[in-house]
Amino acid sequence: MDVRVVLVEPIYDFNIGMVARSMKNFGFKELYIVARRSIGIDAIRFASHAADIIESAVIVRDLEDALVGVDYVVGTTGVTGSEHNLLRIAVPIWELRHTLRLKGKMAILFGREDVGLLNSELRRCDLIATIPASDEYPVLNLSHAVAVTLYELTRGFQRRFKYRAATPEERLLIMRFLEESLRFSGLTGRKLNRAMFVFRRVFGRSFISGREAYTLIGCFRRIRNRLSQCVSSTT
Amino acid sequence: MDVRVVLVEPIYDFNIGMVARSMKNFGFKELYIVARRSIGIDAIRFASHAADIIESAVIVRDLEDALVGVDYVVGTTGVTGSEHNLLRIAVPIWELRHTLRLKGKMAILFGREDVGLLNSELRRCDLIATIPASDEYPVLNLSHAVAVTLYELTRGFQRRFKYRAATPEERLLIMRFLEESLRFSGLTGRKLNRAMFVFRRVFGRSFISGREAYTLIGCFRRIRNRLSQCVSSTT
Repeated sequence: MDVRVVLVEPIYDFNIGMVARSMKNFGFKELYIVARRSIGIDAIRFASHAADIIESAVIVRDLEDALVGVDYVVGTTGVTGSEHNLLRIAVPIWELRHTLRLKGKMAILFGREDVGLLNSELRRCDLIATIPASDEYPVLNLSHAVAVTLYELTRGFQRRFKYRAATPEERLLIMRFLEESLRFSGLTGRKLNRAMFVFRRVFGRSFISGREAYTLIGCFRRIRNRLSQCVSSTT
Repeated sequence: MDVRVVLVEPIYDFNIGMVARSMKNFGFKELYIVARRSIGIDAIRFASHAADIIESAVIVRDLEDALVGVDYVVGTTGVTGSEHNLLRIAVPIWELRHTLRLKGKMAILFGREDVGLLNSELRRCDLIATIPASDEYPVLNLSHAVAVTLYELTRGFQRRFKYRAATPEERLLIMRFLEESLRFSGLTGRKLNRAMFVFRRVFGRSFISGREAYTLIGCFRRIRNRLSQCVSSTT
């Protein structure tokens, strides 16, 4: 699913800039702005390294012009509906991830800073999504709403990390030296098995890097060697 | 887990205001700001209906003052580590929801808009988290980073965890017996410090339960005691 961000009559240029930045942070490019005014210099300033997204933004006068070529329209609201307000019945934003399986182009609409999307605009949407927030103050800043939404959309895809994970051999060495250390300290049988199980789980959950594995192997080897000398000198 | 948001030397008052707003949006109240300057009026303006969070914010001059009463320190970074940069090895932000089953107070540190957290500050952390973003422009606006982090944390509040987390005292005992074991094995000075740093990070990332802590403490105490006898019998 190809995503277009649509800002409907945003009031503040700094918000437009921050939205552009957030789009670039999460790898989105297509920005449409429904506006009956020109966009000021603050938009560029607050976009920081995402000025190109402001420069290539499409400014249109009516929502319909922003939806040309769109297959699926998602509206957002901070004010969700009671059962008497069908228009504003919304799903939590994390449900949007499922839309990524759809084919075609999806537009996500974000409304004005003060009154959000109008009923006539909400009526145009295939789905309304909301960011669950505190009852005391549920309305997020516009650019925050965009950031959280785009974060949620990209979440599933970006599990790449720059560091090398410990290899199975390295993880085995950690466990081997640790086990020998515990044996030399007199732990045996079921208690030893149980302890090793706990260590495996604890280390398993911490996604040890290759560099860290090197340190852990060094430490446990050192302890094991010292205990080994100790055992042979006393027997 | 009780959460404190700590901004370390933020440059722009509008970001401070937007952070406060975001905190109120997601139901967090405790804001500490490490700053050597006064906070300007823009902070209040951009906080919108969260001015009370700015007004009750605690301004301190040093990071250590912001960590008084804190049991678990989480650092954030937009620049994650290669395998040669142990300090910046980070987990994706969604792993933070596991921290919510810990007891006590957690501080989440957000660094300066330009250079983030310094290495000396990262060294103080039990865990480093990052918001996975585009390689082209991975650095989020400060208030966006806070918004996404708090959104992710509140999502986690909805989940239930079945087991008790290790207490700060238990985690301290694990580290103490491990450190004494390494000392008895002849590791000292910078090498010892480096090793302990790696262990703190590895254990910090694995969210040890109370039951697991009991086993780890038992194992390392056993090893330490054996090494201690050994040292005293050979001297």
